[in-house]
Amino acid sequence: MGWATHKKPSAQPQRPTGRHHTSGTGNPCKTGCSGQSSSPVIGSHPNLDKQVLSTTQGSEQLGQKYLSSGSRQLQARMGSPVHRVSLGDTWSRQVHPNIESERYIQSFNVERLINILDGGAQNTALRRKVESIIHSDPEFSLKDNYFMTQNERYVAAVRKKFHLQITAKRLGWSENSPEFYYVYRALSGELALNLHHVFLKSLRSLGSEEQIAKWTPLCNEFQIIASYAQTELGHGTNLRGLETEATYDAATQEFVVHSPTLTATKWWPGDLGRSATHTLVQAQLICSGARQGMHAFIVPIRSLQDHTPLPGVTVGDIGPKMGFDHIDHGFLRLDHVRVPRENMLSRFAQVLPDGTYVKLGTLQTNYFSMVVLRVDLLLGEIIPLLQKACVIAIRYSVIRRQSSIRPSDPEAKILDYQTQQQKLFPQLATAYAFHFLASGLLEFLRSSYDAILNKDFSHLPELHALSAGIKAMTSDLCLQGTELCRQACGGHGYSKLSGLPSLVSRVTASCTYEGDNTVLYLQTARFLVKNYLQAQAQATPGSTLQKSLPQSIAYLTTTDLARCPAQKAADFLHPKLYTTAWAHVATRLIKDSVHHLETVMQSGADWDEAWNQTTVIHLQAAKAHCFYISVKSFTETLEKLENQPAVQQVLKRLCDLYALHGILTNAGDFLHDGFLSGAQVDAVRTAYLDLLRLIR
Amino acid sequence: MGWATHKKPSAQPQRPTGRHHTSGTGNPCKTGCSGQSSSPVIGSHPNLDKQVLSTTQGSEQLGQKYLSSGSRQLQARMGSPVHRVSLGDTWSRQVHPNIESERYIQSFNVERLINILDGGAQNTALRRKVESIIHSDPEFSLKDNYFMTQNERYVAAVRKKFHLQITAKRLGWSENSPEFYYVYRALSGELALNLHHVFLKSLRSLGSEEQIAKWTPLCNEFQIIASYAQTELGHGTNLRGLETEATYDAATQEFVVHSPTLTATKWWPGDLGRSATHTLVQAQLICSGARQGMHAFIVPIRSLQDHTPLPGVTVGDIGPKMGFDHIDHGFLRLDHVRVPRENMLSRFAQVLPDGTYVKLGTLQTNYFSMVVLRVDLLLGEIIPLLQKACVIAIRYSVIRRQSSIRPSDPEAKILDYQTQQQKLFPQLATAYAFHFLASGLLEFLRSSYDAILNKDFSHLPELHALSAGIKAMTSDLCLQGTELCRQACGGHGYSKLSGLPSLVSRVTASCTYEGDNTVLYLQTARFLVKNYLQAQAQATPGSTLQKSLPQSIAYLTTTDLARCPAQKAADFLHPKLYTTAWAHVATRLIKDSVHHLETVMQSGADWDEAWNQTTVIHLQAAKAHCFYISVKSFTETLEKLENQPAVQQVLKRLCDLYALHGILTNAGDFLHDGFLSGAQVDAVRTAYLDLLRLIR
Ligand SMILES: Cc1cc2nc3c(=O)[nH]c(=O)nc-3n(C[C@H](O)[C@H](O)[C@H](O)COP(=O)(O)OP(=O)(O)OC[C@H]3O[C@@H](n4cnc5c(N)ncnc54)[C@H](O)[C@@H]3O)c2cc1C
Ligand SMILES: Cc1cc2nc3c(=O)[nH]c(=O)nc-3n(C[C@H](O)[C@H](O)[C@H](O)COP(=O)(O)OP(=O)(O)OC[C@H]3O[C@@H](n4cnc5c(N)ncnc54)[C@H](O)[C@@H]3O)c2cc1C
Repeated sequence: MGWATHKKPSAQPQRPTGRHHTSGTGNPCKTGCSGQSSSPVIGSHPNLDKQVLSTTQGSEQLGQKYLSSGSRQLQARMGSPVHRVSLGDTWSRQVHPNIESERYIQSFNVERLINILDGGAQNTALRRKVESIIHSDPEFSLKDNYFMTQNERYVAAVRKKFHLQITAKRLGWSENSPEFYYVYRALSGELALNLHHVFLKSLRSLGSEEQIAKWTPLCNEFQIIASYAQTELGHGTNLRGLETEATYDAATQEFVVHSPTLTATKWWPGDLGRSATHTLVQAQLICSGARQGMHAFIVPIRSLQDHTPLPGVTVGDIGPKMGFDHIDHGFLRLDHVRVPRENMLSRFAQVLPDGTYVKLGTLQTNYFSMVVLRVDLLLGEIIPLLQKACVIAIRYSVIRRQSSIRPSDPEAKILDYQTQQQKLFPQLATAYAFHFLASGLLEFLRSSYDAILNKDFSHLPELHALSAGIKAMTSDLCLQGTELCRQACGGHGYSKLSGLPSLVSRVTASCTYEGDNTVLYLQTARFLVKNYLQAQAQATPGSTLQKSLPQSIAYLTTTDLARCPAQKAADFLHPKLYTTAWAHVATRLIKDSVHHLETVMQSGADWDEAWNQTTVIHLQAAKAHCFYISVKSFTETLEKLENQPAVQQVLKRLCDLYALHGILTNAGDFLHDGFLSGAQVDAVRTAYLDLLRLIR
Repeated sequence: MGWATHKKPSAQPQRPTGRHHTSGTGNPCKTGCSGQSSSPVIGSHPNLDKQVLSTTQGSEQLGQKYLSSGSRQLQARMGSPVHRVSLGDTWSRQVHPNIESERYIQSFNVERLINILDGGAQNTALRRKVESIIHSDPEFSLKDNYFMTQNERYVAAVRKKFHLQITAKRLGWSENSPEFYYVYRALSGELALNLHHVFLKSLRSLGSEEQIAKWTPLCNEFQIIASYAQTELGHGTNLRGLETEATYDAATQEFVVHSPTLTATKWWPGDLGRSATHTLVQAQLICSGARQGMHAFIVPIRSLQDHTPLPGVTVGDIGPKMGFDHIDHGFLRLDHVRVPRENMLSRFAQVLPDGTYVKLGTLQTNYFSMVVLRVDLLLGEIIPLLQKACVIAIRYSVIRRQSSIRPSDPEAKILDYQTQQQKLFPQLATAYAFHFLASGLLEFLRSSYDAILNKDFSHLPELHALSAGIKAMTSDLCLQGTELCRQACGGHGYSKLSGLPSLVSRVTASCTYEGDNTVLYLQTARFLVKNYLQAQAQATPGSTLQKSLPQSIAYLTTTDLARCPAQKAADFLHPKLYTTAWAHVATRLIKDSVHHLETVMQSGADWDEAWNQTTVIHLQAAKAHCFYISVKSFTETLEKLENQPAVQQVLKRLCDLYALHGILTNAGDFLHDGFLSGAQVDAVRTAYLDLLRLIR
């Protein structure tokens, strides 16, 4: 047994080092995606490969540092007995000539497009300033991330978080300022204690003014570290099923917060495993003997002196996960833990000293903070993951050469293969579509926010339905797109050093957290069905239904064509035409889902049974609705760019591609009732393939 | 700053422990998927949760062992300063009552189905015997896998590998015996040195009889550890582009094997990073000044004395990856390394002592070993990953309860939600479909293998096209399915302890290795187009084309209906009907792709240019072709089960589901030319939704 008996370890065990791209945003790629990558660019071309394989000066020094303190220590730290080696020349910051040359052939002013994405030139300037501060500070370096254990990632993320707080203080950045948003992006979210801010947001949504005034400064100064504990082992989706109880004890004016069963253990909350001193516990309120449903309670869990768990608290880390190594997701059991009456967040409900329950909001207000979080996530976490994947994969595809189109030709850039374009460009278009969609939703939320805080809940159902469906669609398609980008980089896409695996394993989590996507889509579907039925019931013969419908579904009642009038491929390049086509399909599917529901009920089932027997159909309808909304939002964005024709033109191509790719992917829905004919679908495909070439 | 300034670590930091399911195969799940899971079952029901959260006796002892040698050591080993804690009772091996009760309501003899999957009752018995040996031997325990670093995983996998060799010797299991296949499955492939066997397989395909006789015993006795080094930094897909050179030196009768550029560095080969002493290098042969294309050379790379790299060899590990932590994927640079003339594998080509090149095979023979590997992969690695994911997710879905169908009902098993059924049952059906498809392909390979070794290459093109397309389809859909199963377990599916994340990150690699899927599909497409055009050219008016076509595409010329005759949902439950429907669509798409190719050529493009402008269309055609093949193979399997009506009936439901789910997912292709009408697609959906209920 050759190997099994050998004694000495290899004399030159080696390891390549990854590169962390520190100035991506300064070099927008030709496609206009303004370089939100903080991941390495990988490549096969000699120059690029040297970049990938060789070490940065910095990392070389780091490597030596570790080596000097003994290889055992390195081994423990890196989890692998491998040293650093440079296969090529030293690290070069040069841009690959193929990328350079691609950048010179644009038809438009990239800076203008960047400004649009940033929401104004001022924001671009601010973002760049923040990025240059972050990237020039070695404390913020992401180097070695991929070589770290879960524990090391966590420690590094905590360190960065506090270094950031110190930096922010020094520079006068206030909590919730745009600077923080740009920092998070520049660091790819590699910061601990994010739930601390989720706590703050929930406090602002659900807390009374006094509570906000009391807890905010404590959080801002990190006198406490807070988290948000909702999900339990037994219940995530079904909030009404949460088992943690908060029983009011009028004698002491305290709530007794308790986990009555094993399944009541809080499970998954971020920052809970090791960091948090306090957490916002969602629990069933019991007062004066009556159960009042889920409410939020601030519960101290660890000592502010020595960080040990407080009496009655069992808390820890839930262990290895698919991603988010830097976050200490935790579990929490509470054994009759007492908190003062003032610790129940009481903007929308209060318990008086004597135990009287006073309701100030509707049933839905408790869901308000979840809507806020969901909308924040879109631009704060989910969509940038796809954007980065697109930047990495598209850049790689202009420097990777593999095979040739003609046997006699030199090797082709893989981006010149039609199938590679078909993998990547629709994803790029999707990244833009979602950016505009989420920006629009954020605006809607902002415009309703104050009203809701002031207990005008009229917009909440629509906001809830929109945010649920859009979160589901966005995370689903961002996952698909990110994984496609990863696969499009071949073997190198499987190496963590490409940056792509961690994007995939992160975006896939977003299909589950803040609401399982299927459940969310079905909530949107319920909204659609309910409103459609209501409007139908109210309509007198002859009148239109439009008035009674919320704005985002008003299209359901506009008069509809039975057939698409397009005659040739070019006709499909009219935003109005394809928006109408999507409206037609969404309307048809929603009507179809209502029709099926009613049919099952007519055959004897009650509403709930009928609902469950038709959810597959409702799901399909909700997806079509959300896609329609996204196409519409993209076309509306285009309309606002009349005065920037060159940028408008490139964005229009992406918008066309997004809508037509959507039609081709769902061709059955368009052919089903003859709205499109087979020949028209072929014309869509022709237009689509032309677009791939044009965008290239 | 509360936390930042605290000194003592938490007094009771804690961690839950995962459970490794060691007797899954003994408890086939009701669905008949014969328990190929070696992953933990997770659950929300109290009993199950206790199982998940509490420690096994064994792991508890293990934990204490580590604790006694100091927490620093534990920390280094686990990469996380967390100890073990039991939240509930001690480990229980009881089966959850909900699973138990589900098992009592089957309509068929599960054992019979298991025998079919195993290929006979004898195999089932053998498999169980092997599994009981593996699962009762603590050296093979997979416990703690998810808590290990990359290095620890590698070390554990090497240890298991050699323990297996010793065990196998003791029990008289020979290399390539079915026992090894069952061991690999029972250990979820968590063994090092797999490429050692890939080397052996390649040796058998490409080596002369003397070479086989010389190297096989060395490998079998592990006197050497071998690997397979094909891919380079710069080239994976384009084998003709490989840059490593093997120049024959007639003076010494040696080959000089050399990496002339940085991009010629071998990159990705398994077992190369730290283990291999020898590797099969694919290199461009240069002899007598002429380049003769890619050939395989056995190159010693590490000393058999002390395992250090041999002179001229630079070798190491390529670092962190998305998965396969236990495998040391490596890189290799060769600086004029000399190997004797006899080290070129010479079944199909030889270099005579004077440097004369003698070709004994066709151009394609070099690809033969890749075909063999690709077919092996299907049942050996890819499909079991989906099977396991189905077992975990379906079992979980009968014990997880969440929300209720009616507000007044108790919480429902999530498997009772239609959308959950729609996530999981098509995946289960796919797992079965692929099992039968791959078994059929393996039979075809076996029946052609000897002929090819004896230089009868007539079946090779068809075998190549089939294996390429089937590998691509299988890995694509297994990835989709595995990820769906993962998401179907909600938050718990994101925990590594569910076993699902590692299935996903493993199956996703199979979309890339052994050939990028897009490239593979396009190879199948080329075969389809080429044969179709040839047959067309040969056909005299009035004659049929059938004779001239290879068997798997003979369907292209059978007379075809313009419209599907089905009138109601039940009509779609006839295998002949949906097989014909799939044949129709595949035929139409292949013809359409040829038509488009010809149209582009008529407009002036040459073949290569026209090909690249139509690859998106060819891809679609190849996919439909492969899907048709899989439906056909499933229905043929059913036919053979006439004498087992109860098992045949359950498998027929899965076959129906597989085919109809495929139609619904690709409805546009069926509606396009009016083969199906909208009303017929609705009928397919009705049949499909009924099947979900029936299978439940
Ligand atoms: C990375 C990550 C971070 C997280 N962070 C936090 C955090 O900080 N704080 C916190 O409180 N929680 C957190 N969570 C938990 C998360 O919010 C839940 O996992 C999520 O809400 C899904 O709930 P579940 O796990 O109960 O899934 P389940 O509801 O059990 O879903 C399982 C399956 O059942 C289906 N299903 C369930 N109900 C229905 C229904 N009514 N109809 C049809 N199908 C149904 C789902 O579609 C799914 O397929 C986190 C989770 C992850 C993965
Ligand atoms: C886990 C893992 C294990 C591996 N193990 C081994 C091993 O043991 N030994 C070994 O030798 N190798 C191994 N490999 C390497 C693997 O075989 C290659 O990565 C694979 O063949 C893909 O080649 P590539 O990386 O060059 O991809 P590329 O060819 O660079 O693919 C990148 C993109 O270009 C596209 N593309 C490329 N060419 C064309 C074309 N002609 N037409 C259209 N599109 C094209 C692809 O579709 C893809 O989207 C392994 C890889 C992985 C991930």
